Amino acid sequence: MTERVYNFSPGPAVLPLPVLEQAQRDLLSLPGVGASVMEISHRSKAFDAILTDAQALIRQLLGVPDNYRLVFMQGGAHLQFTLVAQNFLRGTGRTAEYVLTGSWGNAAFKEAQKEGSARAIWDGKQHNYSHLPAFNELKISADAAYLHMTSNETIQGVQFKGEPDTGTVPLVCDSSSDFLSRPIDVRRYGLIYACAQKNAGIAGVTAVLIRDDLLERVPKNLSASLDYANFAKTDSRPNTPPCFAIYILMLVCRWLRDEIGGLEKMAALNTQKAKLLYDVVDSSGGFYRPHARPDCRSLMNVTFRLPSEELEAEFVKDAAQLKLTELKGHRSVGGIRASIYNAMPRAGVEALAQFMGDFAQRKG
Amino acid sequence: MTERVYNFSPGPAVLPLPVLEQAQRDLLSLPGVGASVMEISHRSKAFDAILTDAQALIRQLLGVPDNYRLVFMQGGAHLQFTLVAQNFLRGTGRTAEYVLTGSWGNAAFKEAQKEGSARAIWDGKQHNYSHLPAFNELKISADAAYLHMTSNETIQGVQFKGEPDTGTVPLVCDSSSDFLSRPIDVRRYGLIYACAQKNAGIAGVTAVLIRDDLLERVPKNLSASLDYANFAKTDSRPNTPPCFAIYILMLVCRWLRDEIGGLEKMAALNTQKAKLLYDVVDSSGGFYRPHARPDCRSLMNVTFRLPSEELEAEFVKDAAQLKLTELKGHRSVGGIRASIYNAMPRAGVEALAQFMGDFAQRKG
Repeated sequence: MTERVYNFSPGPAVLPLPVLEQAQRDLLSLPGVGASVMEISHRSKAFDAILTDAQALIRQLLGVPDNYRLVFMQGGAHLQFTLVAQNFLRGTGRTAEYVLTGSWGNAAFKEAQKEGSARAIWDGKQHNYSHLPAFNELKISADAAYLHMTSNETIQGVQFKGEPDTGTVPLVCDSSSDFLSRPIDVRRYGLIYACAQKNAGIAGVTAVLIRDDLLERVPKNLSASLDYANFAKTDSRPNTPPCFAIYILMLVCRWLRDEIGGLEKMAALNTQKAKLLYDVVDSSGGFYRPHARPDCRSLMNVTFRLPSEELEAEFVKDAAQLKLTELKGHRSVGGIRASIYNAMPRAGVEALAQFMGDFAQRKG
Repeated sequence: MTERVYNFSPGPAVLPLPVLEQAQRDLLSLPGVGASVMEISHRSKAFDAILTDAQALIRQLLGVPDNYRLVFMQGGAHLQFTLVAQNFLRGTGRTAEYVLTGSWGNAAFKEAQKEGSARAIWDGKQHNYSHLPAFNELKISADAAYLHMTSNETIQGVQFKGEPDTGTVPLVCDSSSDFLSRPIDVRRYGLIYACAQKNAGIAGVTAVLIRDDLLERVPKNLSASLDYANFAKTDSRPNTPPCFAIYILMLVCRWLRDEIGGLEKMAALNTQKAKLLYDVVDSSGGFYRPHARPDCRSLMNVTFRLPSEELEAEFVKDAAQLKLTELKGHRSVGGIRASIYNAMPRAGVEALAQFMGDFAQRKG
């Protein structure tokens, strides 16, 4: 057995061990195929089965209604920032509205502004994105091209608990960092996109759920690689898709269904894991200072500061000695960030909580 | 040992067995890291080393001059069809010139036409793309935005032996299906792109070599995900790259250098493999009818017809019994296609040649 660390990386992030083990076992030859999943045609029966499975599992896990298409794309969330605006804003004469809740909301907004008229209807910049708006604070224009939100901000560690009612305005959501971490009401959304490398798999594939009626709004003559309707029409294969990344996504979904028991259970486990860390933060007598306001805390990325940057550096170094790795916060927020996505085992979080308590006692 | 077939898939295609074995061995934990290559941050030291290695190996194998950048992107060759035109054609007032040598040249042309003025200066349609132009047939305009060519057409099985002298007009080449299969004179090109899933790795990563001066032509305000200059500036990481696909690409390049001994040797092996098959075709007394004119034959994709579609179906079925798989030709050309990229072992080609001889004798 290879010695593995507890890896708190914000993404690419830890994967479920059974997924890694199955991928390893079958890497030279998929059972019955005689070739690696990396070597087979994207139009082969074997890959068809993988793709179909991945789609069916996501649909089942999230309860996706029939009037939504599910496609797999490349380019990460960043390309989606552009695609959303190229498919649904450019040339419409309308304005897209953005909720700026942190680094990713801002990045999405920046790309949209290159494609058309976009405006921020809420911006948490003045308090360094430490909290989120209440939904009734959002003044959404009835004729907006769409409303864009980011369900979880990995850098700031803030997460929405639900979604606003946007009426007839399509709600577009970057769910990259909490996709498949909890149940959601898909019906509330026009489009959901999520790169896989947080909760759902590895870098290189992005899942996109699109309501049928939005596909009719896609302009003609878009690049074949940038056209949601083309991806829907060709079942994610206008050209060769990232087959291996889709395979891992499928294995992760199987693990979510069969080992975890679905998204309700996954959400309960994630809530418990996050509570372990926030409890240490809250009971540290001010030694650990959380970045996010308590009601907006992310269950995925736990962000906090220590009394000094020296102590933060020491914290990261001492933790690594205990094989608790990748805890350094993003430079824009500083401090510590523990990313505890689906595949981070409770034992890893317990080890971190224990270390945090010990460290606070030693240094506090 | 897992039983493996000889997989003649046109891509995703066979990988070198030692690459698969190393990936399998280290899949749960990269040596010294304690986490899978699929789980580590794209900004970690471990991934930095992989990326740097992949770049250095490709530069060494191809002898890339210092005034070329090498970046890794997502989206396959198809996205490059668009990017080339968005970065170097749109808004220039110029015309891009395309050489249409088969399905891929046409696909690239189609996407360019969506972005600006593009015209075909040679089109092999009337003879179903069975041969290529001589370079002196190409009348390249001195003020063309660029000349686009496809070095190898996987569907028709035609391949250029070199490249035209385009003077000051940048030569842009889709090398997807013969990249790293032979030495090339990079200096003749302005830009070379190649998806990895033929000779160089797996689906999900595309290598792009760009001459420095072309980067200065990239328009401002392009989407961050579609901007070559941004990829060069951020060393392929404007956002999370397809880490695992880059890792496999790096392993394939190491295999090319250490096991094969470089591209001269790889080209010699590929030439020998192709000769084995073309010799059977040519000595079959007309039983096997090659699609490509002899002087334009691809060393990567060997395409031919049999006397009837029934015999072709029988050929594919009988071959599969011998674990020679994925030999069915593309519907647009029909017949048989044997893709024999770098990683197809000579033994696999020998087995196919033997089968072809036997089949012709039995049925001819």
